[in-house]
Amino acid sequence: TNRKIYGYTGLTLSKWMITIIIGLLVGLIAFTIESFQDIIIIYKKELTEKLFERGLVLVFYNYAAIGVALVLLSSFLVMFWAPAAAGGGVTLVMAYLNGNDIPDFFRHRTLFTKILGTICTISSGLPIGQEGPLVHIGGAIASELTWMHGRPPIRERSVLAPQTLRETWRNKRRELTPKAWIFDFYNDKDRREFISAGAAAGLAAAFGAPIGGVLFFMEEDSSFWSRKVMWRSRLCTTCATMVLSWLNKRKFSFSLPGTISFHSLKPEFNVMDLPLFVITSVLAGGVGAFLNIIHDWLAQFRPSSKHRALRVLEACLVTLISVDAIFMLPYYFGHCLPIQKGQEGDEYWYRYACPLSDQDTGVQTYNDLASLYFAVPHQFNHPHEFFLLLFILAYLIATPGGIFMPSIMVGTSFGAFLGRIFQIFFPRWSVQPGIHALVGATAMLGGVFRTSISLVVIMVEGTGGIEFLLPVILSIVLSNWVAHHVHSAGAYESDLERIGEVHFLQSEPSQKLHLITARDIMASDVISFKEITSVAEIVEVLRETSHNGFPIIRHTHRDVFSSDGQLVGVILRHQVLLLLEQRCIFEADALTLNRRRRHSCSLRLPKSAMAQQYLDRLMGVYHHAHYPHRRYLSSRPEAVNELEIDELLQEFATPGVNGSSSTDSSEGDPKCKDVEQAIRTGKELAVDFRPWMNRAPLTVREETSARRVYIIFRTLGLRHLCVTDATNRVVGIITRKDIAKAHKGLEDAYSDTIKEQEYE
Amino acid sequence: TNRKIYGYTGLTLSKWMITIIIGLLVGLIAFTIESFQDIIIIYKKELTEKLFERGLVLVFYNYAAIGVALVLLSSFLVMFWAPAAAGGGVTLVMAYLNGNDIPDFFRHRTLFTKILGTICTISSGLPIGQEGPLVHIGGAIASELTWMHGRPPIRERSVLAPQTLRETWRNKRRELTPKAWIFDFYNDKDRREFISAGAAAGLAAAFGAPIGGVLFFMEEDSSFWSRKVMWRSRLCTTCATMVLSWLNKRKFSFSLPGTISFHSLKPEFNVMDLPLFVITSVLAGGVGAFLNIIHDWLAQFRPSSKHRALRVLEACLVTLISVDAIFMLPYYFGHCLPIQKGQEGDEYWYRYACPLSDQDTGVQTYNDLASLYFAVPHQFNHPHEFFLLLFILAYLIATPGGIFMPSIMVGTSFGAFLGRIFQIFFPRWSVQPGIHALVGATAMLGGVFRTSISLVVIMVEGTGGIEFLLPVILSIVLSNWVAHHVHSAGAYESDLERIGEVHFLQSEPSQKLHLITARDIMASDVISFKEITSVAEIVEVLRETSHNGFPIIRHTHRDVFSSDGQLVGVILRHQVLLLLEQRCIFEADALTLNRRRRHSCSLRLPKSAMAQQYLDRLMGVYHHAHYPHRRYLSSRPEAVNELEIDELLQEFATPGVNGSSSTDSSEGDPKCKDVEQAIRTGKELAVDFRPWMNRAPLTVREETSARRVYIIFRTLGLRHLCVTDATNRVVGIITRKDIAKAHKGLEDAYSDTIKEQEYE
Repeated sequence: TNRKIYGYTGLTLSKWMITIIIGLLVGLIAFTIESFQDIIIIYKKELTEKLFERGLVLVFYNYAAIGVALVLLSSFLVMFWAPAAAGGGVTLVMAYLNGNDIPDFFRHRTLFTKILGTICTISSGLPIGQEGPLVHIGGAIASELTWMHGRPPIRERSVLAPQTLRETWRNKRRELTPKAWIFDFYNDKDRREFISAGAAAGLAAAFGAPIGGVLFFMEEDSSFWSRKVMWRSRLCTTCATMVLSWLNKRKFSFSLPGTISFHSLKPEFNVMDLPLFVITSVLAGGVGAFLNIIHDWLAQFRPSSKHRALRVLEACLVTLISVDAIFMLPYYFGHCLPIQKGQEGDEYWYRYACPLSDQDTGVQTYNDLASLYFAVPHQFNHPHEFFLLLFILAYLIATPGGIFMPSIMVGTSFGAFLGRIFQIFFPRWSVQPGIHALVGATAMLGGVFRTSISLVVIMVEGTGGIEFLLPVILSIVLSNWVAHHVHSAGAYESDLERIGEVHFLQSEPSQKLHLITARDIMASDVISFKEITSVAEIVEVLRETSHNGFPIIRHTHRDVFSSDGQLVGVILRHQVLLLLEQRCIFEADALTLNRRRRHSCSLRLPKSAMAQQYLDRLMGVYHHAHYPHRRYLSSRPEAVNELEIDELLQEFATPGVNGSSSTDSSEGDPKCKDVEQAIRTGKELAVDFRPWMNRAPLTVREETSARRVYIIFRTLGLRHLCVTDATNRVVGIITRKDIAKAHKGLEDAYSDTIKEQEYE
Repeated sequence: TNRKIYGYTGLTLSKWMITIIIGLLVGLIAFTIESFQDIIIIYKKELTEKLFERGLVLVFYNYAAIGVALVLLSSFLVMFWAPAAAGGGVTLVMAYLNGNDIPDFFRHRTLFTKILGTICTISSGLPIGQEGPLVHIGGAIASELTWMHGRPPIRERSVLAPQTLRETWRNKRRELTPKAWIFDFYNDKDRREFISAGAAAGLAAAFGAPIGGVLFFMEEDSSFWSRKVMWRSRLCTTCATMVLSWLNKRKFSFSLPGTISFHSLKPEFNVMDLPLFVITSVLAGGVGAFLNIIHDWLAQFRPSSKHRALRVLEACLVTLISVDAIFMLPYYFGHCLPIQKGQEGDEYWYRYACPLSDQDTGVQTYNDLASLYFAVPHQFNHPHEFFLLLFILAYLIATPGGIFMPSIMVGTSFGAFLGRIFQIFFPRWSVQPGIHALVGATAMLGGVFRTSISLVVIMVEGTGGIEFLLPVILSIVLSNWVAHHVHSAGAYESDLERIGEVHFLQSEPSQKLHLITARDIMASDVISFKEITSVAEIVEVLRETSHNGFPIIRHTHRDVFSSDGQLVGVILRHQVLLLLEQRCIFEADALTLNRRRRHSCSLRLPKSAMAQQYLDRLMGVYHHAHYPHRRYLSSRPEAVNELEIDELLQEFATPGVNGSSSTDSSEGDPKCKDVEQAIRTGKELAVDFRPWMNRAPLTVREETSARRVYIIFRTLGLRHLCVTDATNRVVGIITRKDIAKAHKGLEDAYSDTIKEQEYE
């Protein structure tokens, strides 16, 4: 009752609060990254301009040294401390939201490395963007905030003893602290929502696109979305954008930060421009898809992640080449141009090797190419085709960094290039190369990433040009279509395939899945527990398998050795571990254990109601109370060893039987041994799963179409699904992996024949 | 194989084609409506201006006569020919997409009435918008195109005879016609997608918002959305917008039609504007919610739809009052102002009773209020507060028309009014009333409709003002929040409640549903069929119930009278009817029918493979092959009578037994009678459901949380869901109605107490 304020439960309020905090933090971090970048870039600029008087070679060495040092730091951290921080991160955030668990992806060190690494990498001058990292950072911040406390499991109690009053009070008191009040309620689903909001805020901050950020994750991940989540995400993105905008301008304002600008464009185009737009879109979309092919191809030749030193070396080498090229090109091909009046104070004019002021006019001069390459590219009026090469080189090196912004740059320059060619060929049509640059950038993104509606909104919000909505839509539709025929997979799909262990369930399953049934994709060697199972058997199963969930079956047969009963529930692996850890164990009659129905055994629960409530809650929020990487540990035998359950079994075993039942369980049928032992001892330690199991597991029949299974899996966000026959016996179990495999296998195997059969 | 063109199946191509056609048609109709409006408005303008020389009264009568005549025509058509065309239609389109069946909503006459009625109503001068009707029209066009053919069922065959070769060929030939090739593939799900695309196109055409239209339906109805559907919807909205834009300007252009314009605004506001925006948003949101309350309250006093003549009279009366007010106000309160130079050609300047030209300056003059009220309001620079009253009056009268645009108008004038007050109170802050008008309009929409993200996009696309994105977001968040506290239901929810028979499952079920289980909401008196059931029993069940689906159960017991077997499948009502109609009936041994397992009976299917295929297809696409309203007919006893099944039974009955078993089935247990009769005759007519039933029905356990059931229902788009116990026996069945009722009931019953319990 004390959790209600002004008609809201504490939960609702704390959710909104957390959302706002996440948004503010993401905006702050985006600003920090930008500021550091600016500082390093200005430092490099001043340094090089000072040194030019003392010779080109010195300047070059200096320049290269700074770049390589920054990337060295970044890639060293990534390779030897937090490997999960490498790359953009959008793919893995999406995979997480899709329902995968990605080890170490949201840990402290990953977050820290990502922030530091992004600053270093971008400042070094590599053609790499901050959008992907910001998405990851946003997700990680949300994860940090909702996982703030890791309550240690209570282990002080002795075997079989009920919880003492003192312990109970301690738990109660813990629940009343403000920390618990705010951060104590989140389960796996809530956490996913917050991470999704955080990631959206990251994207929004990168592009100044509060709506586009929300839509991007909505489009990629519509299965978990509801209106409430959308509202919260919107609030989060708005906070992030406003903070960033405010900090950037040092004054409070509502206008959008907008990293991309095409301000000089006139929103005028006529019917003659239509075919030209089509040409630009198709070509840019094709180039985008082609880039994906090259990236895929090059990925084979890159050193694998196992050779850490090689990866670091690769990153440094790529940086050296990039810096070299960026440095040398302005020197040999750049022109010294006068700075336009009124803009002298702007910090993005690079004097480089140019004289301080023009001899004829006396105004300050700048090197056009140097200004373009060295500064963070805020303007896209110039073409820089050769970025393409550096972009390809820099992709997939062992530092944080995304390919969103480089793709836009390549697309822009490509579009502008086409626009100028059109200008030459059709001088009467008043072609505006700027619009072609915009169309080219959009089409390139479409070709590389294959997202649709959110991309439109991001482009429109980012460029601030609602007038160009229709060309943007046109270019996205065309580029997606073309790119799909050049290369079937977008950048994210390629990424996923490269990572390999992640099973991504797309929102649109293949029609071909209709051809097979649940029977064809399920694993039929199901390991299940009985309602009351001996501790020895449980420990053995936990040691030998890594399954995440176990069906609980009922004994309907009198036969001792038969265990094929009807499904009555499901229990998760971590719940089993917790029951053992909390010693929810009782001494069972051996006959009870193996032969009789449930009526004949007495159940012992923690005695006080409060203790029971506490355990109940732990069972539900286990993943919350323990850090996420625990989930991977829990599937290994070590997790069982930690519970000191063998000692317990040994302690319990009567002198008549030597050793615990689990230490030498490898010989003979364990069930026979159990019975044998039980007959000798009369008693055994057992766990009663009935109070804790999920009594209403969703099941499907063997005959269910695999496509329907896919949809159920995806929309309900399941991890495993029991398959039953007409008498409700478990005949198989389906996991995310099975489904993803079946989907992939079908797509590859039948490429042509199926489509025809489908509609016959 | 002949259905594959350039790597696409005919299905894919035809889907895209249909989508484009829908988009073009919607754009065309939107233009038609606008054109007719313009014509009538200009006609009225010329008429009144000519007549003013001959006295006020004459003009007034003339003016009123035109308005009332138009509304009379419209409301007469609606009340006496196509009642489903009344009102906006957005609510019911949403309800349809949510999974409800709405009789007559997408029929020819409804479409026709809606188009004609919208033209008449808007031209009459009532404060009513065209957006709702356009959404309905878009959906209806999509429905028309995908339901073009109604293949008559084949009934020529004699009882029990297999299909002849000739019939088979006729069917085959029919399948090869281009009509079938294009329109023959769509099932219920496809149709829903097309209707959703069409509705989105309607909204897009109304506001010039191709993205907002897609998002609106995505937000309201995310459960059925996939990327493919989104792409198609986008194409559809783009087509509609482009056609409209092109037709409007008589030249090809990419710029958006944009019905709302706030062009004169400067995108400048500072931190001082923030509290003022907050005030405007909060007040406008509150007024919006208050409007809903008034509408709800007034709805009680309006005549019910049963009194058709009264409804028509009401519409005419409201029109008379509106026209009166609109006509008189400019006369008494309007000012004669000179038309600005260069705009004399614009057709929206109403001279009204003003002199032809100003005496001093010689330029043409216009009456400010008349121009505002008579013309279709394209500009929102002026306040027109009293629209509020007319708006309230006009809501819910028996003509087509939406409240979207009137809400915007009321909001705009309210916002501008507040802005001017702020200007007076804070003269130094350079308050722009225009921005407050925009904020007010957005907040009013938020208060009335409670949509979130799509509304932002619609406002931004419609006004073309991306610079005002952040105030728009702010105002929507605040207004939703305020409105929620003033009145819990938005306009759509109120509408649904008023309609009553529609069960809308919102995307966000209440947390309170966690408190009850499937057992609490299911209907436990399940009527099921056995795998092989006698025709007499089937006919009786069909006559006495209107259930849409029947579980099929297996006999596991030897007991003749026991029927509580395990669930093996589900069959739909229309499939049962079709099986009877197609005479998929065989002579069963009476013992087979009532006692034995499935092995002992011989199954007779249509003999030729092609005939079987044909029947198979009919079973799947029944709803397609028959017109949608058949679904309502099929739940009545008449549908059974149409099958002439009694005659068949009578014909079959041996002379020893008088009458068919179904005519006097009311006395005694029918099952006993069946057996009795069977023993005498030895044989009976029966249907074997096994080849046709859905063998993999999704089931849930009694213990499943009602909230989970809700989510399964909504995300998988189910109509009924069997509830089973641990041995897979059917213990209940849950329909959409049960769930909606439980949800509603819980929401109403526990308003305060639950929240506290929830997280204890």
